[in-house]
Amino acid sequence: MRGTIVRMATAGKRRLVVLGTGWGGYAFLKSLSRSTLSQLDVKVVSPTTSFSFTPLLAQASCGTLDFRSALEPIHSTRGIAFHHAWCDALDLCKQRIEVTPASKPEFRPADPLTPTSPTRAQERATTYSIGYDYLVVAVGSYNATYGTEGVKENALFLKDVSDARAIRWRILSAFEGTNAAYPQPLSKEDEEQVRARLGFVVVGGGPTGAEFAAELHDLIRQDLTKIYPHLARLASIKLLDAGKSILSSFDKGLAEYAMQKFARDGIEVVLNARINSVTDQGVWVQNPHGGAELMRAGMVVWSTGITAAPIVKALRGVAKEDRSHKWLTDAKLNLLVHQPARDKGEIRGNIHQPAPDKQEGDVVPMTNVWAIGDCSSQATPLPATAQVANQKGSYLAAVFNASPTHPSAQEPFKFKDKGSMASIGSNEALIDSPVGKDKGALAWLLWRSAYTIMAMSWRNRFLVPANWASNLLFGRDVGRF
Amino acid sequence: MRGTIVRMATAGKRRLVVLGTGWGGYAFLKSLSRSTLSQLDVKVVSPTTSFSFTPLLAQASCGTLDFRSALEPIHSTRGIAFHHAWCDALDLCKQRIEVTPASKPEFRPADPLTPTSPTRAQERATTYSIGYDYLVVAVGSYNATYGTEGVKENALFLKDVSDARAIRWRILSAFEGTNAAYPQPLSKEDEEQVRARLGFVVVGGGPTGAEFAAELHDLIRQDLTKIYPHLARLASIKLLDAGKSILSSFDKGLAEYAMQKFARDGIEVVLNARINSVTDQGVWVQNPHGGAELMRAGMVVWSTGITAAPIVKALRGVAKEDRSHKWLTDAKLNLLVHQPARDKGEIRGNIHQPAPDKQEGDVVPMTNVWAIGDCSSQATPLPATAQVANQKGSYLAAVFNASPTHPSAQEPFKFKDKGSMASIGSNEALIDSPVGKDKGALAWLLWRSAYTIMAMSWRNRFLVPANWASNLLFGRDVGRF
Repeated sequence: MRGTIVRMATAGKRRLVVLGTGWGGYAFLKSLSRSTLSQLDVKVVSPTTSFSFTPLLAQASCGTLDFRSALEPIHSTRGIAFHHAWCDALDLCKQRIEVTPASKPEFRPADPLTPTSPTRAQERATTYSIGYDYLVVAVGSYNATYGTEGVKENALFLKDVSDARAIRWRILSAFEGTNAAYPQPLSKEDEEQVRARLGFVVVGGGPTGAEFAAELHDLIRQDLTKIYPHLARLASIKLLDAGKSILSSFDKGLAEYAMQKFARDGIEVVLNARINSVTDQGVWVQNPHGGAELMRAGMVVWSTGITAAPIVKALRGVAKEDRSHKWLTDAKLNLLVHQPARDKGEIRGNIHQPAPDKQEGDVVPMTNVWAIGDCSSQATPLPATAQVANQKGSYLAAVFNASPTHPSAQEPFKFKDKGSMASIGSNEALIDSPVGKDKGALAWLLWRSAYTIMAMSWRNRFLVPANWASNLLFGRDVGRF
Repeated sequence: MRGTIVRMATAGKRRLVVLGTGWGGYAFLKSLSRSTLSQLDVKVVSPTTSFSFTPLLAQASCGTLDFRSALEPIHSTRGIAFHHAWCDALDLCKQRIEVTPASKPEFRPADPLTPTSPTRAQERATTYSIGYDYLVVAVGSYNATYGTEGVKENALFLKDVSDARAIRWRILSAFEGTNAAYPQPLSKEDEEQVRARLGFVVVGGGPTGAEFAAELHDLIRQDLTKIYPHLARLASIKLLDAGKSILSSFDKGLAEYAMQKFARDGIEVVLNARINSVTDQGVWVQNPHGGAELMRAGMVVWSTGITAAPIVKALRGVAKEDRSHKWLTDAKLNLLVHQPARDKGEIRGNIHQPAPDKQEGDVVPMTNVWAIGDCSSQATPLPATAQVANQKGSYLAAVFNASPTHPSAQEPFKFKDKGSMASIGSNEALIDSPVGKDKGALAWLLWRSAYTIMAMSWRNRFLVPANWASNLLFGRDVGRF
């Protein structure tokens, strides 16, 4: 293997390949210095052409922010070659990855939101290989459905800007379509139908689900009620969680506060919810008597947690966390691999061939491969948050910046918990940080300021407050496009 | 028929139905007074939920403006019931229309841009009828393809915001995809492929086509060249027209000026172009020797002219313009119908049963039906422009405002030509108006001011200049969503 590296290096610059442009990958790329970039041949592989600023997605999905305020396009500037592609197979011994283009830039007259899978299948013929000397894996995670039937077909997720756009389209078209189909005055039977069409169910009471429910409430009560007063009064929002509380990662007092606020707002929080299936009629929820009841809904948003991406599951020969299948890294974020697999050159995976469940032998770090963000974990697990991924990305960039051609960390990675925030609607937010806890309007102002400062580009530092100002004057954007 | 009107009127308010929310329908609705609206039962039927501000679509399609700056959502405020539906059949004697819902507000996990036709077919079962006492038809027109093979499948149009969005998606994904597929440095063969992928062909040199070509040129030269310098130099724009000049509706000197500007910019103008077909490879153009040559293109935008909508073609018993099939109205915009058809109650049409080509007999105005905009014409034809449709809409609203329950015009409609404008890129525009002709940077400032004032809502009067200011600071928006 060393031989390979030297050969490649003599043929030109050392090749750094980065998989993924989420919080981990984007932070890593952004923090690489100009000098580091000039000394390496850097390639980025990602199935999406932009980084989604996830904390603002709930707002983008409800018209509070433009979609473009929540995304940063990934470009090929700064000497980075961007491959708009899926990584389908990895061979860590031969130091190669196989990728399939994710875009079909030839004719495609319609539909940006069609699922990428069919296209991917069509284009499999064009799969190609990329070799690397250094590999940074930041492929993130998928939405967990826990095998619940019908979720993928009937529910919407909220992981990137195209999800936010689909949700917004659905909310507005639910109101527009109901308004067109049920002329005033509404009969009793009509009212029942309208309630079903305008029932919104959010599954998962974590920050994403809770923020989305709150934002949707504000959109309906502050904006859509002006346009459709007779419909908005029949709309309902239900927030379901399998646990004993929503926002369970927050301080108990703050979570209580949020629950009380939601109760006042009329957002129905359903705890200990067990979901059997999701259909095009709504959500089937288990009742205490063992049967199931249909909670009718016009839209279901699913945000219950994460599961490993197919390529993460498929890789054999690496050390993995038992239940989550996440790859294990050492404290310097180098991937841990099983010694026998390494010796036999068997550290590889292909999304079409799932890996065997268990592998034996001592583990050793692979010094030219790093894994950051949701696809990876460590002996002491950290939460699967943007903050962790972001800090790991910056840490790793510092390692490369210190010695671009021989990156090797001196110090282990240390996570600095800066706390968490969640908006809960009506200009209120929760802040739970090591330096203090706060809730209400001041917390909301802090929350807004923090995200304005964090917004990754100057363009968005300008756009986000401009959007908010425009909302004050004209309300949220209710045009559907 | 008179009997019918009286019966309906005694049962409640008189029913006004408006078909279409383009320039004609939107101007009509917007100009109806509060008092008129309160005295009538007003229903609007349109397959789109927003009015597209067409002069700004070229800019929206190139990221200069947000999509939302070029649209005004149609709502049910002001006592108007909005039916998001297609009008499939008309019976002017029985005073009924048949409509099919255009939205499917139940589950539709993806794809706002899927063509509406399949959905429409699925939903035919839910077709319903709407009766009216007064009918205003403003259904506009379709893009003319002159029977050219492959246009509908492979070319993009530019008539509304969803078209603009599809075009923008395609431009950006052409660059992103090419960038991912052809790593630098490019070989000779690669360069050939890149030229084909980044060839942009615009068919039709009217204001829409010319403005789009100019805007695309600016997007590529001012913004995309910064991100993809090695690709932008290989991109090309061709503007094809079947006639002897582009912008032929403008003063000859101004059209010449635009041609010279385009030549300097490297936009290739091809005149007297005869197009055989459009394929996924590009445009097959006839050469002087009778053969055809392939003009390779990654995207083809088609804006050659208009043709009558199916429902307009299908209506029998009405007077029509010979070649265009547009409905004829009298000077007060009342629909002209053939006397025998009227007597026999045969003034009807269904999009599935095309009307016979010719009908005989004297024509008489139908006093409760008006036709405005591109679907209609008069003895002295006016240009098929937004300006004409807009003025007709306002004129007709004034007729209703004068006597909401017995609308009948005192004076014939008179068109006031306010001239036309077209932007030609690099902050230059053409103005051709009765009070004067101008070109260059000052014309461009006037053009921008005019559209800011014309933007239909205060929201857009704020958003459009805000977009332009943001472009000055940060360049155009190159995020794809």
